[in-house]
Amino acid sequence: MALLDDLKWRYAAKKMNGQTVPANKVNYILEAARLSPSAFGLQPYQVFVITDKTLLAQIKIISNNQNQVTDCSHLLVFAAWDSYSYERIGDVFLKTAKERGLADNAMEAYQKGLWNLYEPLGRTWHSEHAAKQAYIALGLAVAAAAEQKVDASPMEGFDKTKMDETLGLEKMGLKSVVMLALGYRDEEKDWLIKLKKVRTPKEEFIIEL
Amino acid sequence: MALLDDLKWRYAAKKMNGQTVPANKVNYILEAARLSPSAFGLQPYQVFVITDKTLLAQIKIISNNQNQVTDCSHLLVFAAWDSYSYERIGDVFLKTAKERGLADNAMEAYQKGLWNLYEPLGRTWHSEHAAKQAYIALGLAVAAAAEQKVDASPMEGFDKTKMDETLGLEKMGLKSVVMLALGYRDEEKDWLIKLKKVRTPKEEFIIEL
Repeated sequence: MALLDDLKWRYAAKKMNGQTVPANKVNYILEAARLSPSAFGLQPYQVFVITDKTLLAQIKIISNNQNQVTDCSHLLVFAAWDSYSYERIGDVFLKTAKERGLADNAMEAYQKGLWNLYEPLGRTWHSEHAAKQAYIALGLAVAAAAEQKVDASPMEGFDKTKMDETLGLEKMGLKSVVMLALGYRDEEKDWLIKLKKVRTPKEEFIIEL
Repeated sequence: MALLDDLKWRYAAKKMNGQTVPANKVNYILEAARLSPSAFGLQPYQVFVITDKTLLAQIKIISNNQNQVTDCSHLLVFAAWDSYSYERIGDVFLKTAKERGLADNAMEAYQKGLWNLYEPLGRTWHSEHAAKQAYIALGLAVAAAAEQKVDASPMEGFDKTKMDETLGLEKMGLKSVVMLALGYRDEEKDWLIKLKKVRTPKEEFIIEL
């Protein structure tokens, strides 16, 4: 029952102790995010791994001054594609074909079919859909961190427009989605550590049909 | 390296063999979803666990006739709140306060603060935001299934309006978000099993600052 035990151990630490998470553990967590499934395998997002103190201090200001931003060891910022395009889809499919030893145009019909599906849905749908794929990766990063006994606090409370400016995301065709602060809980000073983890009871959460 | 090994083993099976996943494994996977983190701990979604053959046949029709819907053992349908409301938030916070042995009104100020934040964002933002929380749970369910060596295929290719009608979601204040088909890969007949898993290379996926 390893994963469930890990998930019971974890919580979103509100006060971290400043200790550094070893590189091999950070890489492990990032690798779980990278291996995440996504719609049509597009992986329409990237992960910024931020340790620069000056930058973290700037991000803290646009994140309601939440302490985790500067007390954490590594701040991950998930940023998703601002839209899909025929070219972006084609780039991924071309790489996929090459990796699988197929002809360069092996997935062209698939690319066209997918673009016919996605294009009419519009840019707002695109960016929301891409963001959702990033949330799957967030879930897997949370699982990986818990397995490694690294605390990981998901954080949505930041000004997305200012984050996009701070990281220069617009010119990369990205929008900031969600953050994950990696570090170690401050066992003495975190108010949340003393409170029971509460979740929706099973009988309300699950509906069997 | 347990989770990463599990994630390398998994893929989204396109052809399942019809074998039943034991109840303890299904419960394990659902428990991982239930333990998922969510914004402010609201868990604004529920999971339908569908095994009724007639219902699965109906769902297959509104899911581009994808075989996994009827070849799987259990079909999970994640359905998120169609909107936040002061009352819904209050219900969760009241239960949380009770579980933590606090006064019933202990989280009232927090409830008001959160509603002041969420209300102006509007219903479309609400339902998109709630859906994103469900995607975190999808990620953890995928991790749990892989650990249990159960195949799990995330599926977005269904008619959401028809799914909402089929499951009677509107009167429950829910909207369908994403499905996860649980079962076992058909080692001989699944075309995807022979193809290499391809992911964005690390150096493109990660940006260190």
